[in-house]
Amino acid sequence: MRNIKLTLEYDGSRFFGFQRQKDKPTIQGELERALSELFNRPLKIAAAAGRTDAGVHAKAQAVNFKTDSPLPLERIQKGLNALLPKEMVVKEAREVSLDFHARYDARSKTYEYLILNSEIRSPLLKGRAYQHPYPLNLEKMKKAAAGLAGRRDFKAFQASGSSVKSSVRTIRRLVIHREGKLIQFTVEADGFLYHMVRNMVGTLLEVGRGKLSVREFSSIVKRRNRLLAGPTLPASGLTLVSVKY
Amino acid sequence: MRNIKLTLEYDGSRFFGFQRQKDKPTIQGELERALSELFNRPLKIAAAAGRTDAGVHAKAQAVNFKTDSPLPLERIQKGLNALLPKEMVVKEAREVSLDFHARYDARSKTYEYLILNSEIRSPLLKGRAYQHPYPLNLEKMKKAAAGLAGRRDFKAFQASGSSVKSSVRTIRRLVIHREGKLIQFTVEADGFLYHMVRNMVGTLLEVGRGKLSVREFSSIVKRRNRLLAGPTLPASGLTLVSVKY
Repeated sequence: MRNIKLTLEYDGSRFFGFQRQKDKPTIQGELERALSELFNRPLKIAAAAGRTDAGVHAKAQAVNFKTDSPLPLERIQKGLNALLPKEMVVKEAREVSLDFHARYDARSKTYEYLILNSEIRSPLLKGRAYQHPYPLNLEKMKKAAAGLAGRRDFKAFQASGSSVKSSVRTIRRLVIHREGKLIQFTVEADGFLYHMVRNMVGTLLEVGRGKLSVREFSSIVKRRNRLLAGPTLPASGLTLVSVKY
Repeated sequence: MRNIKLTLEYDGSRFFGFQRQKDKPTIQGELERALSELFNRPLKIAAAAGRTDAGVHAKAQAVNFKTDSPLPLERIQKGLNALLPKEMVVKEAREVSLDFHARYDARSKTYEYLILNSEIRSPLLKGRAYQHPYPLNLEKMKKAAAGLAGRRDFKAFQASGSSVKSSVRTIRRLVIHREGKLIQFTVEADGFLYHMVRNMVGTLLEVGRGKLSVREFSSIVKRRNRLLAGPTLPASGLTLVSVKY
């Protein structure tokens, strides 16, 4: 038996998220269809680092699957790329130890959220950035964000109705970078709650707009209060950029 | 009478170029349809800075049109943006002197051509970059490109069959910038021959691959020999980024 790790890039715009769904195009569905065709038997992946939502993109999603086929890695990669839709690509195929698990073994994942801070939409960024028309105070947003690093309970940014055991996660890095009208949020954490990045950036925008003070922001985090936090931003600005093992 | 200058951004992927065509979606066609609807009478633009080909994008194309309507500029811009397809946007509307002509008055235009230098396609750059799988010697390409700046006859890079009077143009700036697997060519000139950027970058790639020496490249330019120059690269990597007046 061999355990193969694939690194995937995809444009999530037209997919109904990562997870397999009946009769709807998903990343997992397309990948398993291509794998099954390549190996000429039904094949399912063992795990994926992050189950991205509909509309979310990936520069380097990681998945693994098991096979007893001796097919060389290069032929696995090229074969899959010939079978996958144009919106998906296998950037790398590697053989890993049999006990490697793309989800449980991930030490950290990094997501980027892109904001177009402009009154005018950008056709060239369509599906890649969330357009926010109002002026934003970047210094205040950075100040509020500085209070998020480290290990803490992020329940305030967890989609309501989620049922994971613990909402404690560790944010290793949270960088806010402005270049012209683009504001890029980069968040690295050991794990993410459902909608965590989209809720967190949505709440930081409320600080930037002056609807929440930095003090109110940190109080919302401390009180773990999802109801007082900002809105869930659209999926289109979000990209899974890397996974560390 | 008023003369209005519009700055347009567009994703050219699904359009049949800039120029109006019967029964095919074009940038000019969509713009004139929106203008006619906004002003409630048939309206055509007077000129455009560059008539981009099918698949070519623009960050800041410039056009002008005349009207005797007193409609404020802001309402012209917002009205057009509500009527235009999602792939197009008016970034700015300005009133200019009556004799302003978006094409004849342009002092220079800047185009960017983007190369993805990788064996593996990128779904996130689909329609935005030309994928070139072979290793490229950037130093040789820069050396060859250095000989292009200034006023000279660019007939070697003119699409065969073109019928403009003179193929002499002035390149003000030609920068080749590599960042990871992306190579960006930026070319500013007082004017461009048909397919000039796509032919020029195509020929520079032949130098980068070692199919042409730097000396052979400059000899092709000097001899104005289109037949010895490299292939016309696809439109998808090309973007009109700015127009100076």
